[in-house]
Amino acid sequence: MKPIHFAAVLAAGLAVAAPPVLHAKPKKAVPAAPAAIAPADQAVVLRDAALKDNNAYEFVAELTTRFGARPAGSASEKAAAEWSAAQFKAMGFDKVRIETFPLEIWQRGDESLEMVGPFPQKLVATALGGSGTTPAEGVEAEAALFETYEQFSSSTADLKGKIVVILQPTVATQTGVGYGANSGSVRRQGPEIARQRGAVGYLMRSLGTHDHRFAHTGGTRFLGAEGVPAMAISPPDAEQFERILKLQKQGQAGPIRLKMVSTPKFLGTGQSQNVIAEITGAKRPQEIITIGGHLDSWDLGTGAIDDGAGVAITMAAAKTILDSKVRPDRTIRVVFWGSEEVSQPNDRGLSGANAYATAYKAEFPNHVIAAESDFGADVVYALSLPESDSPEFVKQVGNVLYPLGIYIDKAVSTGGGPDTSPLFSAGVPVMDLQQDGMDYFDTHHTPDDVLERIDPIKVDQNVAAWAATVWLIASTEVKFKGVAPKP
Amino acid sequence: MKPIHFAAVLAAGLAVAAPPVLHAKPKKAVPAAPAAIAPADQAVVLRDAALKDNNAYEFVAELTTRFGARPAGSASEKAAAEWSAAQFKAMGFDKVRIETFPLEIWQRGDESLEMVGPFPQKLVATALGGSGTTPAEGVEAEAALFETYEQFSSSTADLKGKIVVILQPTVATQTGVGYGANSGSVRRQGPEIARQRGAVGYLMRSLGTHDHRFAHTGGTRFLGAEGVPAMAISPPDAEQFERILKLQKQGQAGPIRLKMVSTPKFLGTGQSQNVIAEITGAKRPQEIITIGGHLDSWDLGTGAIDDGAGVAITMAAAKTILDSKVRPDRTIRVVFWGSEEVSQPNDRGLSGANAYATAYKAEFPNHVIAAESDFGADVVYALSLPESDSPEFVKQVGNVLYPLGIYIDKAVSTGGGPDTSPLFSAGVPVMDLQQDGMDYFDTHHTPDDVLERIDPIKVDQNVAAWAATVWLIASTEVKFKGVAPKP
Repeated sequence: MKPIHFAAVLAAGLAVAAPPVLHAKPKKAVPAAPAAIAPADQAVVLRDAALKDNNAYEFVAELTTRFGARPAGSASEKAAAEWSAAQFKAMGFDKVRIETFPLEIWQRGDESLEMVGPFPQKLVATALGGSGTTPAEGVEAEAALFETYEQFSSSTADLKGKIVVILQPTVATQTGVGYGANSGSVRRQGPEIARQRGAVGYLMRSLGTHDHRFAHTGGTRFLGAEGVPAMAISPPDAEQFERILKLQKQGQAGPIRLKMVSTPKFLGTGQSQNVIAEITGAKRPQEIITIGGHLDSWDLGTGAIDDGAGVAITMAAAKTILDSKVRPDRTIRVVFWGSEEVSQPNDRGLSGANAYATAYKAEFPNHVIAAESDFGADVVYALSLPESDSPEFVKQVGNVLYPLGIYIDKAVSTGGGPDTSPLFSAGVPVMDLQQDGMDYFDTHHTPDDVLERIDPIKVDQNVAAWAATVWLIASTEVKFKGVAPKP
Repeated sequence: MKPIHFAAVLAAGLAVAAPPVLHAKPKKAVPAAPAAIAPADQAVVLRDAALKDNNAYEFVAELTTRFGARPAGSASEKAAAEWSAAQFKAMGFDKVRIETFPLEIWQRGDESLEMVGPFPQKLVATALGGSGTTPAEGVEAEAALFETYEQFSSSTADLKGKIVVILQPTVATQTGVGYGANSGSVRRQGPEIARQRGAVGYLMRSLGTHDHRFAHTGGTRFLGAEGVPAMAISPPDAEQFERILKLQKQGQAGPIRLKMVSTPKFLGTGQSQNVIAEITGAKRPQEIITIGGHLDSWDLGTGAIDDGAGVAITMAAAKTILDSKVRPDRTIRVVFWGSEEVSQPNDRGLSGANAYATAYKAEFPNHVIAAESDFGADVVYALSLPESDSPEFVKQVGNVLYPLGIYIDKAVSTGGGPDTSPLFSAGVPVMDLQQDGMDYFDTHHTPDDVLERIDPIKVDQNVAAWAATVWLIASTEVKFKGVAPKP
C-alpha cells in the first residue's frame, strides 16, 4: 500500500477513522470564523473540518443503497435526482432545482456468449451501451481474432458473416490515458467499422486494467437498429482467446465459433435531469463557480465510483463551506449532471452537460471556473489550474493542498472531463483536481462498481481538497483564463 | 506481499521465472541419478527440478482453456478425463485407466434476483448446487433477514411464504476453518430448515472472504423437486441488505420484497469418472501411495484453483519423479477424482471418492498413505503427517521441505479433504501438504475461478514439495498409522 501523504493532517484532526454510519447524528458545525479571518486561513479551517466528516461517504452509501444502478433516463435516475434535491434543501442550499431534458434510451436485453468450438464453454460478456441487437435466438458465426486494434483496422481480411474479436488490453496509468488510448477506437469506432465490413458481431477485450472475470460496458456509437451487436468480454476470457490463438498456430485447435446473444431495446425518447443547488455569493453573487459530478451510472453496478463518489465529494465540499457559516464572496453552484454515460443517435448531444451548457450560455462570461469530479474515489494528487492573474492565489492554494499530498501542476489545465467539456469549449476556465486513476479502470463500468470500492479516508481527502480550493477561489478576486475564446 | 520463503531455493535453480508457454519444448529430463544416490539426496534433486519446470502451470492452463468449466457428469468433465488420460499415457505413466460411476445430475437454469422494494434494484446471486426451483416466472415474497445463522435457527419467527436471507459473513483464515464454520450450517442445512418452516426461498451471503461482486455457488442438500430454491448473493449485496436493515431500524425504509428466479433442472442419472495413472514401484509395487485432486469443477468459472491446480500439482509431482528415471520402490498412483463438488440425493455417496474407495477397498491394507491437493494454488506452508514409525524419515522430509518455506506440523494429521475422506475413514493414513488458504475463498466457486488466479511460481513450490515428499515415502520403508482402525 502506498503511504497516505495526508497522514499528518489527518492525525491533527482525526484520532480514529470512525466507521461510516448512515444517518449518524449531524456533526457539530464548524464554529463560525471571526469576521476578519483571511481566506487562506479559513481554507485551512475548511480543509481540516472536511477531514473530520464522513459526509461524502455517507451520501454515496445512501445513494447507492437506495437507488442501486441509475441508468440515464431511468426511473431510478429520476428518483435519485429527487432525493438529491431534497437532501440539498435539507442542508440549506439555495435555489435547489431540477432541470429536465430529453434523450434517446437504450436498455440492455438478454445477453450471453458461448464458444461453440473448438472448446465449448460459456464466456463472460456484456453489451456495449448503444449497440445493436442479435435475433432473440442469437447469432452463431466464426470468430475473426485481432490481437491489436491496428491489426483489425489495417487488415483486408474478409469479415463478412464473422464476429470480430479485438484482444488489445488496456494499460493502467495514473492519469487514465491508457484508457483513452482504447475508448475512442476499440469501443466507439470499432463496432461500426466491423459492421461496414460485413461482420455480424463485435467483441472486444473490456477496457479494464485488471484480470478478474468482470466485463466492462461503456458507450459505443449509437446507430439504433442499424448498429451491429457489440459486447465486451472479461479480461480472462480475452486471455482464453489468446491461448487458443497459440494452440491454433501450433495446429492444435480448429477455428473458433461463437454464439452471441444480445437483445437491447431502443425505447425511444425519454427524459433525464440535472440537479442544481447553490451557495449564493455574499459580495459578487453573479460570479459563479460550477462544480459537480454525474448522477447517472451504468446499469451493472451501483455507480459508486462512477460517479456516486464525484457527486458526493463536490456536494460535501460545498456543504463544508455552508456549514462553516462564513459565506463566500462568489456563488458556488453544485450540479449533479444527468446522463453522462450514454451515447446518442447521430452524436446529438442530449447529455446533462449539453443541457446545462445550453441553459446557462448567457452566464458563461460570469463563470469564474468550472470543475468536475468523475474519476473514482482515490486520492487527489495534483491540482491543474487554468492560467490565472494571481500568483498569490497559486501560492495560497499550494500551501493549503500540499499537506494533503497534492502538488500544483505547472502545466496549464487542458480541461476537466465530459461534463465540463462543453463549458471548456465555450471558453469557460476549467480546473482539474486530478485523482489517482491507477485502479479506477479495474472496476469502472462493471457490476463491481459498488460502495465497497470506496475508502472513506480517501474520499475525505478529496472533500478537503475541493472545499479548500473552491473556497479560496470563491473568496478572493482571482481570475482565470479559458483556453477557447472567452465567451 | 508476503515474502516468498523459498526465494533462496528458487534463486539457486531458476534465474528468471519464464513466462508460461503452452506446449513449450519439453524440458531436458533431469539426468539419471547414479544408482547409489540416497533417497534424501534424490529428494533434493527432484525438489529443485520441479522448481525449474512449468509442468503444473502448463497443464492447468491447457485444461482450463480446452474444457472451461467441468461440472460433474458433464460432457466437458468427460472430455477432460479422456484428454488427461491421453496426457498421462504420453508422459509414460503405467496402467492409465478411466473408471466410470453413476451420479444424479443437477444443472443450473435461469437465475436472477431483484429487490422489488423498498429500493428497486438488481442483485447478484447464483443458485446453490442441488437446490430446488422456483416457477419459471419466479417467486416474489417478503424477505426475512437474519444477521447470523444462529439468529435464524433459534428464531421462532413466522417464515411462511417468506424468503429467508442469512447475512453471516465468512471469516478468512489460513486453514479454511472460517469457511468450515459456515458451509455445513448456512449452505448445507439452512435451505432445508427454511423449507420446513414454510419459506419459499433461501438466500445466503456467499461463503466468500472478499468484498467483490461475485456470488459463490456450492452444494446444498439435494432434495430434488422437494428442495427449496436457494441462492448465494455476493458480499456487496449482503452489505446492501445490512444497510437497509439499519435504515429500517431508523424508520427510513419499509419491508424488503424480493423476486427470485432460479430454475435448475434435475436431469436424472448420468455418468462421471475417475482417471487413474501409476508409476509402478520397482521393489514393492503392491505398496501404494495415492495422490491426486478432483477434475470436476463448478459451472461458473473454469475451475482453475478448484481444482485444476490440484490435479496439475499432483500430476506434475509424479511426472518429476518419472522424468528423473529413478524408479521409486513403492507404487505412486495419481487419481483425478470425478464429481467432488456435487451433492447427491439422500446423501448417497455417488462421488469419485466413494467410487474409488469401493473399487479399491481390498487394497487398502497396502495403501501406505493417501493425500490430495484441493485448496487452491497458494504455497504449501506445513506438512501434516500421520503417526510414523520413522523419526529419521520425519527428519529427512523436514530437511528437504524447510528451504521451501514449509515446516513439519507437530500435530498428527487429522485427514486431508473430501476425496481422501473415505480412505481416512477406512483406516488409510492420510497426510496433508497444507496450503495457505487466506485468499482461497475470495474466488472459490465463482466465475472468477480462472487461470489468472494462479501464480506459476507458487504452483512450482507446491510441485517441489509434493515431488520430494512423495518420493521420500515411496523410496524408504517408512510406515504410517491411520487414525481409524487399520483396514
